[in-house]
Amino acid sequence: MNLLLFEANEIRPDSTVYLQDRRSEHIIKILGSRPGDTIRAGVINGPIGSGEILAIRGKGKNAEVVLRFSPQDNNPECQAVDLILGLVRPIMLKRVLAQVASLGVGRIFLINGNRVEKSFFNASLLKNEQYRSCLVQGLEQAKDTRLPEVTIHKRFRPFIEDYIPTVAGDYHRMLVAHPEGIMDLKQAAGRNITGRTLLAVGPEGGWVDFEIKKFVEHSFVPVSLGTRILRTDTAVVALLGQLLLLQGD
Amino acid sequence: MNLLLFEANEIRPDSTVYLQDRRSEHIIKILGSRPGDTIRAGVINGPIGSGEILAIRGKGKNAEVVLRFSPQDNNPECQAVDLILGLVRPIMLKRVLAQVASLGVGRIFLINGNRVEKSFFNASLLKNEQYRSCLVQGLEQAKDTRLPEVTIHKRFRPFIEDYIPTVAGDYHRMLVAHPEGIMDLKQAAGRNITGRTLLAVGPEGGWVDFEIKKFVEHSFVPVSLGTRILRTDTAVVALLGQLLLLQGD
Repeated sequence: MNLLLFEANEIRPDSTVYLQDRRSEHIIKILGSRPGDTIRAGVINGPIGSGEILAIRGKGKNAEVVLRFSPQDNNPECQAVDLILGLVRPIMLKRVLAQVASLGVGRIFLINGNRVEKSFFNASLLKNEQYRSCLVQGLEQAKDTRLPEVTIHKRFRPFIEDYIPTVAGDYHRMLVAHPEGIMDLKQAAGRNITGRTLLAVGPEGGWVDFEIKKFVEHSFVPVSLGTRILRTDTAVVALLGQLLLLQGD
Repeated sequence: MNLLLFEANEIRPDSTVYLQDRRSEHIIKILGSRPGDTIRAGVINGPIGSGEILAIRGKGKNAEVVLRFSPQDNNPECQAVDLILGLVRPIMLKRVLAQVASLGVGRIFLINGNRVEKSFFNASLLKNEQYRSCLVQGLEQAKDTRLPEVTIHKRFRPFIEDYIPTVAGDYHRMLVAHPEGIMDLKQAAGRNITGRTLLAVGPEGGWVDFEIKKFVEHSFVPVSLGTRILRTDTAVVALLGQLLLLQGD
């Protein structure tokens, strides 16, 4: 945890925050903080600032930490990449969500596909936004406050045919990861990219031909990571790393 | 498993291979192969080719598959990247080894560091090359046969001060991942890279200042992935993805 995060509604009118969960435990055990210390803190979807520790009460698991939050920086900039992800096993999804949140993505569309096991949509991780803790963990790691917005799309065709046309104008480029693509990312997107990117990465087993065809019909450009076939979790992180590099000055 | 792999010593003089383990199970259950079918197969650190299924004997977990291997392509080219990795928790290491094997690395140096928990060196994963199955899994995924060579270095200073000078001449560039680095990979290594790269990525918690200083003294250039602080597993895959992009034509 490189940044302590809390929700806006956890801040009381006098700017204090009372913590009594894994966060207070982290402050006491890992950071070894004491009253008077200041730690970096931020509000989810809000500013980054500092938290002055006013009191530590009790011991062990139930210890409570009271701090006063002072916002400093404004909201970080909107992320430049949104991600479409063929739904993967819950255990992989947890890890991927934390990783992509740490790398910085704006929206995450979890979608169906021919090779998505349908039971994955019933995973408890997807109920009541339980995936949110994975995203927060990624933000805490990367010192970011902007929580990716997750939506779940159980039907492939309406997502591509009906929904994508309504948002396509928001993007400077739309890319679909495909091992058989003939271009790598710099060939598909150029060496200095600006503006927003929508990147689609397939489920375990990849997209089927019909799905690639549909993506291409809706202006997605296939991009390849070379002749190697990578697992979804590896491909997502490698491609986001590549986008990060091409976005930089 | 996109490529069935076996050891050179599993091939009998008449070119047949007898399988009775997770591989035969995979061939029967996942691929649904039958006698007469041909599947892609390869020899670890050897050629890729095809395996004609001659017989499937028995049922369930103990079913045996007999195939005849015909080598076709020569050994794939030597990988262009070697990796120094601050030793991480065994559960993360398993995953990282599979991922970096799938992305293609030649050598992996698992090294100590100030923020490496010393007990990690006693992990059963590091005994008797138990990590090898993770690497093979990455190769099976990526359709590669060249197994990364892993060495373990329990002392940081002798590794940097004594060992690195003996291999530094093999590399066109040596890079150390450091969130406080002022250059990203394309600034540090150029936009079209050729030749071999040695990349060092820190353990959980990162390299300490002394370690960065030692790397720099031995001609490593610090590279950053931006202001975000990434976990080791995320940083390794993102940086290897970036190297892959800059190596491509």
